[in-house]
Amino acid sequence: MTPRLLVTLGDVAGIGPEIIAKAWPQLARFGQCTVVGDPTFLPQGIPCVNPCKIDLSGVLPGVVSAAAGQAAYEWLCYAIDECLAGRAEAIVTAPIHKEGFHAAGVPYPGHTEVLADRCAAAHHAMLLYDDDIPLAVAHVTLHTSVADAVKGLSIAGVLEKIELLHELIPRLTGQPARIAVGALNPHASDGGLFGHEEATIITPAIRQARAIGLVVRGPIPADAIFLPHQRGSINGIVCMIHDHGHIPMKLLGGRRAVNVTAGLPIIRTSVAHGTAYDIVGKNIADESSLVAAVRVAASLTARTITTAAGA
Amino acid sequence: MTPRLLVTLGDVAGIGPEIIAKAWPQLARFGQCTVVGDPTFLPQGIPCVNPCKIDLSGVLPGVVSAAAGQAAYEWLCYAIDECLAGRAEAIVTAPIHKEGFHAAGVPYPGHTEVLADRCAAAHHAMLLYDDDIPLAVAHVTLHTSVADAVKGLSIAGVLEKIELLHELIPRLTGQPARIAVGALNPHASDGGLFGHEEATIITPAIRQARAIGLVVRGPIPADAIFLPHQRGSINGIVCMIHDHGHIPMKLLGGRRAVNVTAGLPIIRTSVAHGTAYDIVGKNIADESSLVAAVRVAASLTARTITTAAGA
Repeated sequence: MTPRLLVTLGDVAGIGPEIIAKAWPQLARFGQCTVVGDPTFLPQGIPCVNPCKIDLSGVLPGVVSAAAGQAAYEWLCYAIDECLAGRAEAIVTAPIHKEGFHAAGVPYPGHTEVLADRCAAAHHAMLLYDDDIPLAVAHVTLHTSVADAVKGLSIAGVLEKIELLHELIPRLTGQPARIAVGALNPHASDGGLFGHEEATIITPAIRQARAIGLVVRGPIPADAIFLPHQRGSINGIVCMIHDHGHIPMKLLGGRRAVNVTAGLPIIRTSVAHGTAYDIVGKNIADESSLVAAVRVAASLTARTITTAAGA
Repeated sequence: MTPRLLVTLGDVAGIGPEIIAKAWPQLARFGQCTVVGDPTFLPQGIPCVNPCKIDLSGVLPGVVSAAAGQAAYEWLCYAIDECLAGRAEAIVTAPIHKEGFHAAGVPYPGHTEVLADRCAAAHHAMLLYDDDIPLAVAHVTLHTSVADAVKGLSIAGVLEKIELLHELIPRLTGQPARIAVGALNPHASDGGLFGHEEATIITPAIRQARAIGLVVRGPIPADAIFLPHQRGSINGIVCMIHDHGHIPMKLLGGRRAVNVTAGLPIIRTSVAHGTAYDIVGKNIADESSLVAAVRVAASLTARTITTAAGA
């Protein structure tokens, strides 16, 4: 079975078109790929569907634009609807620019929130996944200021990410989930000296997860949890804030790490980098993360099909 | 000139005594080393001075104790006074346990604050330094909850750390300082969408630093600033919170990273790990960071003497 994979073009002022063009010769082995976007931004010969009528001729490389933001949003919505209707098996997204969304009046900070809303997913998480280690990382808070992230932490929020990781890890890795939870505060608060969240939020969430039979340990200091000797046989980590997970995953995996959205009724992966406006048009963008995102998406469709057939 | 280096034993319930014993044969080439501590915790033949009379016979390995905390504090104070009096050139500290300090009623969260107070240093910073990259990292906030860290950020605080790095980097590396400043919020706030601190605190501090002639760039997202292609020729990084610097430095340098206190009238380095109560007595503690801390301290005494003689 060759999965039908939709690759969204993303914000055309960014490196999306360049990495898709570079990756294309490497993608056929993973499935039957089609770009959702404007074909004028792609080399001839790449199959492309454009469900929207937005004029993108005025978009300048590396410059925030409402038109590019609106088009990226509409392409994403189309790809979601195609997957929900069963006409495609997975979405792989090239990067959007959050300020482009903002300029277009799109009321979402990023891809993940659009996906969750359009799929009516009550519980969802954007995972960082490195299929070489293998290791999946969920964040309790993500695209929010650190001040708001701290205020937004809750037992239910931590527990939700543990459960989403627990559900997706077997489909990602073929192995049972073994999860560790990172701390918020330095030294995991050193016994309460530097903050209360470990005692009042994270530890109770871990206890509740164990009570329902999940394999979870922590809280472990954020500067220790990714070290190989601490990580051990762990294949999932829950981080409290964006950079607690993104700093180590980018250092460990480089351009191999991809995003995977957990908790959706459809499969969605993404490059783990942004639009890189600063290097657009220089032909130096690296397509590795896109290739990895397509590889992981195809692998998920295979495991999901197997599961459905076996059920 | 052989520098006289004082190595404090730290919290004797932790791995300090073990790593000092293991490191000792490797230390003589760096200087004339003396331990400040209780000799009953060390093998015979290691020179040791004990300026305090605290009974440590009841201290259990791996258990927080007021006696161990008090002794660690007094040894540190003695070593500071010896350096201030010119009878030693540098202090290298084995780890203390913050809860031990707390149990003893020592009103400091860690070594750095004791050093700053006793040396009457108005401006100081605990740097993480890896002499192999080489790269020095300063933190604007350190041993405090993330919630308090966010509230405690200020233009003056960021500028102070830039200036302290600028002063110490030439003595650490022999090269002019080239500094980058990390963001607080995800994606450096993506143009203000996720927090204001980049615009209201970090960017103004960078501008002020440039106005006095320092080579500084940023704010750069915390998950990008340590990547080799971003880091480039940078030899100093200022981070807003503890784990923004500690996560990458521990992943990059492993046990090679050491602590260096900037802004003091004396030289002080330290291991970059804690007391590791969980592995005390198992003979598996790694002495690498202590050896590196003594190496860096000796190197600083050499560069400092050279500077003084040349002035």
